[in-house]
Amino acid sequence: MTDQQPRYPWISFTTDYGTADGFVAACKGVLARRAPGAAVLDISHDIPPQAITAASAVLTQTVPYLPTAVHLVVIDPGVGTARRGIVVETASGGVLVGPDNGVLPAPAERLGGITTAVELAEPDWWLPEVSATFHGRDVFAPVAAAIAMGADIRRAGPALPTAELVPAPTPYCRRDNDQVRAQVITIDHFGNLQLALPGTEAPWRHGEPLRITTPTGSFTARFGRTFGDVAEGDCLVLVDSAGQLAVAVNTASAAALLGTERDQTISITPAEDER
Amino acid sequence: MTDQQPRYPWISFTTDYGTADGFVAACKGVLARRAPGAAVLDISHDIPPQAITAASAVLTQTVPYLPTAVHLVVIDPGVGTARRGIVVETASGGVLVGPDNGVLPAPAERLGGITTAVELAEPDWWLPEVSATFHGRDVFAPVAAAIAMGADIRRAGPALPTAELVPAPTPYCRRDNDQVRAQVITIDHFGNLQLALPGTEAPWRHGEPLRITTPTGSFTARFGRTFGDVAEGDCLVLVDSAGQLAVAVNTASAAALLGTERDQTISITPAEDER
Amino acid sequence: MTDQQPRYPWISFTTDYGTADGFVAACKGVLARRAPGAAVLDISHDIPPQAITAASAVLTQTVPYLPTAVHLVVIDPGVGTARRGIVVETASGGVLVGPDNGVLPAPAERLGGITTAVELAEPDWWLPEVSATFHGRDVFAPVAAAIAMGADIRRAGPALPTAELVPAPTPYCRRDNDQVRAQVITIDHFGNLQLALPGTEAPWRHGEPLRITTPTGSFTARFGRTFGDVAEGDCLVLVDSAGQLAVAVNTASAAALLGTERDQTISITPAEDER
Repeated sequence: MTDQQPRYPWISFTTDYGTADGFVAACKGVLARRAPGAAVLDISHDIPPQAITAASAVLTQTVPYLPTAVHLVVIDPGVGTARRGIVVETASGGVLVGPDNGVLPAPAERLGGITTAVELAEPDWWLPEVSATFHGRDVFAPVAAAIAMGADIRRAGPALPTAELVPAPTPYCRRDNDQVRAQVITIDHFGNLQLALPGTEAPWRHGEPLRITTPTGSFTARFGRTFGDVAEGDCLVLVDSAGQLAVAVNTASAAALLGTERDQTISITPAEDER
Repeated sequence: MTDQQPRYPWISFTTDYGTADGFVAACKGVLARRAPGAAVLDISHDIPPQAITAASAVLTQTVPYLPTAVHLVVIDPGVGTARRGIVVETASGGVLVGPDNGVLPAPAERLGGITTAVELAEPDWWLPEVSATFHGRDVFAPVAAAIAMGADIRRAGPALPTAELVPAPTPYCRRDNDQVRAQVITIDHFGNLQLALPGTEAPWRHGEPLRITTPTGSFTARFGRTFGDVAEGDCLVLVDSAGQLAVAVNTASAAALLGTERDQTISITPAEDER
Repeated sequence: MTDQQPRYPWISFTTDYGTADGFVAACKGVLARRAPGAAVLDISHDIPPQAITAASAVLTQTVPYLPTAVHLVVIDPGVGTARRGIVVETASGGVLVGPDNGVLPAPAERLGGITTAVELAEPDWWLPEVSATFHGRDVFAPVAAAIAMGADIRRAGPALPTAELVPAPTPYCRRDNDQVRAQVITIDHFGNLQLALPGTEAPWRHGEPLRITTPTGSFTARFGRTFGDVAEGDCLVLVDSAGQLAVAVNTASAAALLGTERDQTISITPAEDER
């Protein structure tokens, strides 16, 4: 263990690895050996497998609350193929490390926007042996550790024009006057359905009765502020704690009640006849 | 990051948020920014959603083994409604922060009893913007961080008489001579059914054959000391590691075998005819 | 809290406790009180209940990436029976603490082999009260904390000849020329089936068509290097990131597609007629 103080005292860590298998621990072992003074803050290791849109949303909504950090992100369906690994520095000082598959640009934007992007092409930064299927451990974790300890990201590989990065996913959302159609981007632990539309776009007045149409059914709801604004078991549309439009059920799961899955598109309109 | 040493080097953290969504991480980010020298010890983030009785039991059984800490507890079905947020100090020095819904009194009692209770009413202690649905991040975490760093809890809001707090839940339990009826308060990872009755009340001799009656069936068991006291797949009643009466199956799940759910009430009596 | 610097700054922690119940937290509380300067690195708490073979595999594949540490391992189906608790020191300096049921020898071998083995027989090292069912908290965690703080393991109890330890599990694996039969030792979060055979034994050329026979069906696959070597939804056999032979499906779960469970034995042969 070195006594060198890290430049970034925090490394956040996000994967779709789950926590049952030792994958996350192997990465943390690499971080502990190479950046022993940096603390790891887990964002999530239960991103749905290979779900870039969901990972991008969770990161974008979480990083503003974290200290300035190296954000290590391994949602990597293309591991071992020709997809690039990248590191991007942002205007706020935070750095993101991960695959170039669209998962990093949206959280980077939330951190002030990308100021420098570099392709990970310098094997000296990696573990001596790189497996074909576990770049989290063998490439991304050692790169994150090196940056946390103060390494200059421009030495990790060639600079990349930002325009050449794979762009953030663009889940469907559209508002026409008082009608909204939007993709479900995340479903949380409580079954709340988070939509791709920012809450500032919500065109309804508080308490307004709404009709939600999903691929499998139609449901009544109200536009509310918090779960308790409707009776237990009733459905509401609200602006969630990340500022996104969302569908919830008071003390129950909207995903279960509405039979709705991630990436489906749902419509919300005023419930004309109930006014 | 400040160099100020925290007054409480440990913050324990208990929620029903799950760990998939970034909610826990956002709270930890707030703690890291505002109390960077305090370490977070996760008790559980998989308390069954909004299960105040289970959360109270898990906390009460765990806090005695922790260092003196600020215990941040967010099981909060009433978030955004008129329910109060509170902080309570205990005779042992530990402090608990969370909603006033009955989840804090039992663990506070285990920590020596409440000496001071305060309503969280001072917005200066919170994040600048408070959402309607995520007081864990916006209210409770910043309050816990402030206390960990040495803030005087009496400045967080007006003092509350202990008698005005929502009391701890009182799950059903009753012993009549050698017969017991008690509510299942927690079901653990192994499917063990923990009952509301303290193990000191168990009226049976070791090895005594018992009959367990659930809402859906009747089962034979023995009163034992540990799982291996009965054959694999057999049922036993024991005093568990938290000192509570419990029903278990050697190397299998009692919840699955007995078809029993949390909050159900079961009866245990001597199995007369098997003696 | 003491200012004493730990001899081992890291304690790794592996259990089958799950993280919902406070069991892991109670153990971490004991570690925090008795070895406050040591950091805990969780390997997994979701080892399948009482699965010694899986735990041994996960540990063996993870410990090489960790810093030198005290490895606390509680997969303990025999808790409260006559099974021994042990501590073993390895040639690389790492120490493992856990039950003597075969879970420690394989990771100890990966850490250079056992140099000293001691039976945990000195109650002064344990918590004052030892429950019948939670030796993780009452015995193993305090022993791990004491060792982390510099205690001499030879004072924890009598020395044990290595030959008297319960040996590592020996899951079935056999290669006959270009035919392989092997037990599934772990199934990871993505549904990849890890086999008991080291990847160095794989007798096939890259791209070779293979036939996989499970207890319930027969499937075609190819020998590949990474998931993207086959089309989405197609099956491949590869050497995984731990160096073991494994069966995977590109962007899907091999366990689900093949209907295969842990501990089952599967066969892999060249798919003669497809050549």
